[in-house]
Amino acid sequence: MAYELYYWPTIQGRGEYVRLALEDAGADYVDVARRSKAGVSAMMKMMQAKTGTPSFAPPFLVSGKITVGQTAAILLYLGGRHDLAPKTEAGRLWVHQLQLTIADFVQEVHDTHHPIGVSLYYDDQKNAAKKRSAEFRKERVPKFLGYFERLLEGGGATYLIGRKATYADLSLFQIVEGLRYAFPKYMKKYERQIPNLIALHDRVADRPNIAAYLASDRRIPFNEDGIFRRYKALDK
Amino acid sequence: MAYELYYWPTIQGRGEYVRLALEDAGADYVDVARRSKAGVSAMMKMMQAKTGTPSFAPPFLVSGKITVGQTAAILLYLGGRHDLAPKTEAGRLWVHQLQLTIADFVQEVHDTHHPIGVSLYYDDQKNAAKKRSAEFRKERVPKFLGYFERLLEGGGATYLIGRKATYADLSLFQIVEGLRYAFPKYMKKYERQIPNLIALHDRVADRPNIAAYLASDRRIPFNEDGIFRRYKALDK
Repeated sequence: MAYELYYWPTIQGRGEYVRLALEDAGADYVDVARRSKAGVSAMMKMMQAKTGTPSFAPPFLVSGKITVGQTAAILLYLGGRHDLAPKTEAGRLWVHQLQLTIADFVQEVHDTHHPIGVSLYYDDQKNAAKKRSAEFRKERVPKFLGYFERLLEGGGATYLIGRKATYADLSLFQIVEGLRYAFPKYMKKYERQIPNLIALHDRVADRPNIAAYLASDRRIPFNEDGIFRRYKALDK
Repeated sequence: MAYELYYWPTIQGRGEYVRLALEDAGADYVDVARRSKAGVSAMMKMMQAKTGTPSFAPPFLVSGKITVGQTAAILLYLGGRHDLAPKTEAGRLWVHQLQLTIADFVQEVHDTHHPIGVSLYYDDQKNAAKKRSAEFRKERVPKFLGYFERLLEGGGATYLIGRKATYADLSLFQIVEGLRYAFPKYMKKYERQIPNLIALHDRVADRPNIAAYLASDRRIPFNEDGIFRRYKALDK
């Protein structure tokens, strides 16, 4: 039975980390809200349920009787079923921990353009966004990406945990792609400090199922409604 | 063998969710960095490792050969070992998903006093903090706590998933405690909208091991270095 993925139909956003795992695994899935407007209504209605396992926010995944939300939890579930995570408890926890650190970084990316709040427009918080982005570029990107770069150096630099890709590698690919889109000037200078991470990015991009996905219209282009947004004022 | 918990020794912070689970379980553990200054040095050194499973940030837990970081991943690990989570895959995922939503909320609490960046002092971002806190009180608290309140209503209101407490219930106790500390004026008005959540808080506080912990000097008092900070300008 095909998985049903519920996520906003016009952005990559947090759903993209799930899409990348499903695509890499060659899994049969339906991106429900992209298929029809009724899909969006169904998604909203499922989140309002009082019983079952309603999610606070998309994405969530329906797999038979299981409905699971929160990007990292979805990946934890898929990783075990599609060989995108180790089999051992320690290995599964480690990859999950890495994914949670990626999730923290994604939140910080989001807050570069929305430091004051999600209910306000970017233009109404532009000055705060400039300040937050300056700190993001100077402190936060080097801290987070430096961490992953160090792990790749220590591990021999094929994939994060060795010779086999996990969902965390797919997510790091997306992080590099997203930063290149949102902060092109900054990344042009910064990338030379993370050669292993860039090599990992390229390696993921070359995986046949990922390459096919990126070339398809299933891959939604980056845009200014998603997490990674290209605002000139925030890039230097 | 006793667990070793590594976390900042002078704050509750994110480590507190782990402490609450360990205490409720009656688990044998050492709060390493609270024991000695050498513990803090050891913690910093472990995070700098290139091999093994070094954490990006505290808290992390050493359990025999396993070292696991990220609060929610630590709780996922402990939940299975100490009957603080269901045995089924679906049940474990659901409680984990709830914890990840709590973690998202904790990040938003943090950002009320640090909307521009962690490298700046509160006083240097006070105006932005006021704006962010206004949105937090008006939009975000009702959205997050309303979600958990709805789940408690739907589930019959003993604990989140039924009659047995999980680590997510312990964490919700901490959320209510923290909000009462940081936003006392606001919570005095708001609490009447979340009667089930307040009842859950009281139920957790009455659990014998939790009550004993809260009365002990192992419980660090709230202070203005942690996640929940009492700043008059942010409370209304």
